[in-house]
Amino acid sequence: MSTHTYKVVELVGSSEVGIEDAIKNAIARASKTIRNMRWFEVVETRGHIENDTVKHFQVTLKVGFTMDDAA
Amino acid sequence: MSTHTYKVVELVGSSEVGIEDAIKNAIARASKTIRNMRWFEVVETRGHIENDTVKHFQVTLKVGFTMDDAA
Amino acid sequence: MSTHTYKVVELVGSSEVGIEDAIKNAIARASKTIRNMRWFEVVETRGHIENDTVKHFQVTLKVGFTMDDAA
Amino acid sequence: MSTHTYKVVELVGSSEVGIEDAIKNAIARASKTIRNMRWFEVVETRGHIENDTVKHFQVTLKVGFTMDDAA
Amino acid sequence: MSTHTYKVVELVGSSEVGIEDAIKNAIARASKTIRNMRWFEVVETRGHIENDTVKHFQVTLKVGFTMDDAA
Amino acid sequence: MSTHTYKVVELVGSSEVGIEDAIKNAIARASKTIRNMRWFEVVETRGHIENDTVKHFQVTLKVGFTMDDAA
Amino acid sequence: MSTHTYKVVELVGSSEVGIEDAIKNAIARASKTIRNMRWFEVVETRGHIENDTVKHFQVTLKVGFTMDDAA
Amino acid sequence: MSTHTYKVVELVGSSEVGIEDAIKNAIARASKTIRNMRWFEVVETRGHIENDTVKHFQVTLKVGFTMDDAA
Amino acid sequence: MSTHTYKVVELVGSSEVGIEDAIKNAIARASKTIRNMRWFEVVETRGHIENDTVKHFQVTLKVGFTMDDAA
Amino acid sequence: MSTHTYKVVELVGSSEVGIEDAIKNAIARASKTIRNMRWFEVVETRGHIENDTVKHFQVTLKVGFTMDDAA
Amino acid sequence: MSTHTYKVVELVGSSEVGIEDAIKNAIARASKTIRNMRWFEVVETRGHIENDTVKHFQVTLKVGFTMDDAA
Amino acid sequence: MSTHTYKVVELVGSSEVGIEDAIKNAIARASKTIRNMRWFEVVETRGHIENDTVKHFQVTLKVGFTMDDAA
Repeated sequence: MSTHTYKVVELVGSSEVGIEDAIKNAIARASKTIRNMRWFEVVETRGHIENDTVKHFQVTLKVGFTMDDAA
Repeated sequence: MSTHTYKVVELVGSSEVGIEDAIKNAIARASKTIRNMRWFEVVETRGHIENDTVKHFQVTLKVGFTMDDAA
Repeated sequence: MSTHTYKVVELVGSSEVGIEDAIKNAIARASKTIRNMRWFEVVETRGHIENDTVKHFQVTLKVGFTMDDAA
Repeated sequence: MSTHTYKVVELVGSSEVGIEDAIKNAIARASKTIRNMRWFEVVETRGHIENDTVKHFQVTLKVGFTMDDAA
Repeated sequence: MSTHTYKVVELVGSSEVGIEDAIKNAIARASKTIRNMRWFEVVETRGHIENDTVKHFQVTLKVGFTMDDAA
Repeated sequence: MSTHTYKVVELVGSSEVGIEDAIKNAIARASKTIRNMRWFEVVETRGHIENDTVKHFQVTLKVGFTMDDAA
Repeated sequence: MSTHTYKVVELVGSSEVGIEDAIKNAIARASKTIRNMRWFEVVETRGHIENDTVKHFQVTLKVGFTMDDAA
Repeated sequence: MSTHTYKVVELVGSSEVGIEDAIKNAIARASKTIRNMRWFEVVETRGHIENDTVKHFQVTLKVGFTMDDAA
Repeated sequence: MSTHTYKVVELVGSSEVGIEDAIKNAIARASKTIRNMRWFEVVETRGHIENDTVKHFQVTLKVGFTMDDAA
Repeated sequence: MSTHTYKVVELVGSSEVGIEDAIKNAIARASKTIRNMRWFEVVETRGHIENDTVKHFQVTLKVGFTMDDAA
Repeated sequence: MSTHTYKVVELVGSSEVGIEDAIKNAIARASKTIRNMRWFEVVETRGHIENDTVKHFQVTLKVGFTMDDAA
Repeated sequence: MSTHTYKVVELVGSSEVGIEDAIKNAIARASKTIRNMRWFEVVETRGHIENDTVKHFQVTLKVGFTMDDAA
């Protein structure tokens, strides 16, 4: 009971707005198929440049979720 | 045939007893949904402290399993 | 729309021929269950030795794919 | 005189708003007991997820400060 | 043709506003002498502290650009 | 309130018995001067050898604790 | 005289054929503007996937060259 | 005299019991051919899984020993 | 019996042909003095450049072998 | 008794003379407030440049000291 | 104005005398073509051995300089 | 012929004088049993402190040597 097991998946979110927004987009998209997400950790922050301007930010994150009985 | 492909997943197991027990708990839980696990590698060892005492150990591990035809 | 979310999985491919062939074997095997793969990154290159000869190469790679609506 | 010695401490700040705010919170809190802080470096960016949403960001940072005579 | 070669340079941008702004400042300044920038990757996030407050953020990034015929 | 700030200190514990015991020894010793410890992370596991035998295990760990008002 | 100074640049070469070919393409392209290249070191091996197949390999490498008097 | 030189070798020990036991097995085996071992450092902790159970733990360690006159 | 101990040595192989060939050359040369080699892991891939061309590839690898009774 | 606990602090020493001198300056300054220092480890070596000349070296080091009863 | 942008280049300096001298040689040589150098960071320290003696030290360093208007 | 194979060993040298001297001591000691040493690379720089003073420097280095026919 007190000894939960978690699974960790790696996602890449993107946003034209900024880093926090890219993180939120990835978690929102993942929530459609993953339940019980508990934490994230940023692994890498990148982005694309077009016409000398940041086109969008790309954040790679690890997301941990509880493996419940139906996982 | 001799060129197997493996998939690697990241898990976090926990235990009030110790590090090896946290590893075993993670593998036991994962075995409910993953078949053909072959090896693990410890990525990180952490834990929670309550009242100046280790409450439980948390071990992050990568687990490799053979991608069989039904995977 | 322009802010895709990707998922990244870790695979280990093997080949008796060489490193590029091990990468291709892993991607070919993964394509049976993963759609919309976009890029890979080599994480580790290892191999087995038998009778003083390389028996096969083993390449660990991360593969990113678009999370589409059915993912 | 020109050969200052600095001490570096590791802090974890958190914020419901974003990454920069978590950094500022950590430095504001640390300023109550640490004088002469000069620079920081982000070591890790994590966060907690509740109900499929980022609950708060957690930023681990190293902070360097001059060891003055009263330190 | 399909096998472009890219060069990668390392820049440090700074901003009193935040991390994304420091990234944009570096790319805007670099665009005066570098053409065809395609992507960036954040390598390090630091900053200076004055009077117990973040004075400015400093972001080290790698920027990749296509080596065209006039490069 | 919900945005706690933590401080992280690095300790080295040792034990003739094993790794978990070295962790517990470090936390027990640190509890004499540090309040509100919340988590630890193992950074390094080493040990001394005497007469071809492990004399004791040495575990380097980071320990995080809440900076309360009296910290 | 015996104490040469070298400069190191980072390049990304690509090839539809393989890893060695991507390295050679990057060095051939760089030789148009860089003289006296002496060594390279592979930093990262990636690639693009199209239609479940490796479209091309991308190898990031550091290349060192002697800073001669006209450099 | 006070400036000893040490050599460091890398070993992989294994055990069905646990991590400390794998370390001790490696050192016991190495003591047959290496004299004057002084310290060890754990580099990697892995293991094999059979039938959903940890078959044995594998610990990679570096071991330092004094280069004496007969080494 | 089931708890083998392995020793790991670091080698650098070279080849004018390519990366796999450099690996094979190192293992072939090492087989003259090392018995029971079981696996290798690529640590670094470098090379020398002469006249704007790759002169040879240099691959650093770790090789593990069973410590048998005569080792 | 034989199971000491150590605390590790991170310092940055500087010197116009050289790397060893920067290390010694940091330890001399730290000795005013830290007792029982036992070892150090160099984490980073940097420096400032003025008028095309090294103005001073800056060495970041970790220093371990015994937690005695009065620590 | 207060938000400078810096560029970072990687150099390898060498010296028969020692590490600090290799750093100084690299900066002296680079000053012929790079203006406004501000700091350096040591990335790697290597050297060549001839006849069982250190022939020269080789230090890889990153050097940051302000991108001024003519850069 | 042009495809030499090298072996790399890890050594720890020490000196009361400084870092370069610790490197030279390790190579001098190793030359009693290892022939054809070609290069070294510094892996770690540590030291012992006694009475608030650096007692000696300890430098861990990798040393590569040609595997000749009698190796």
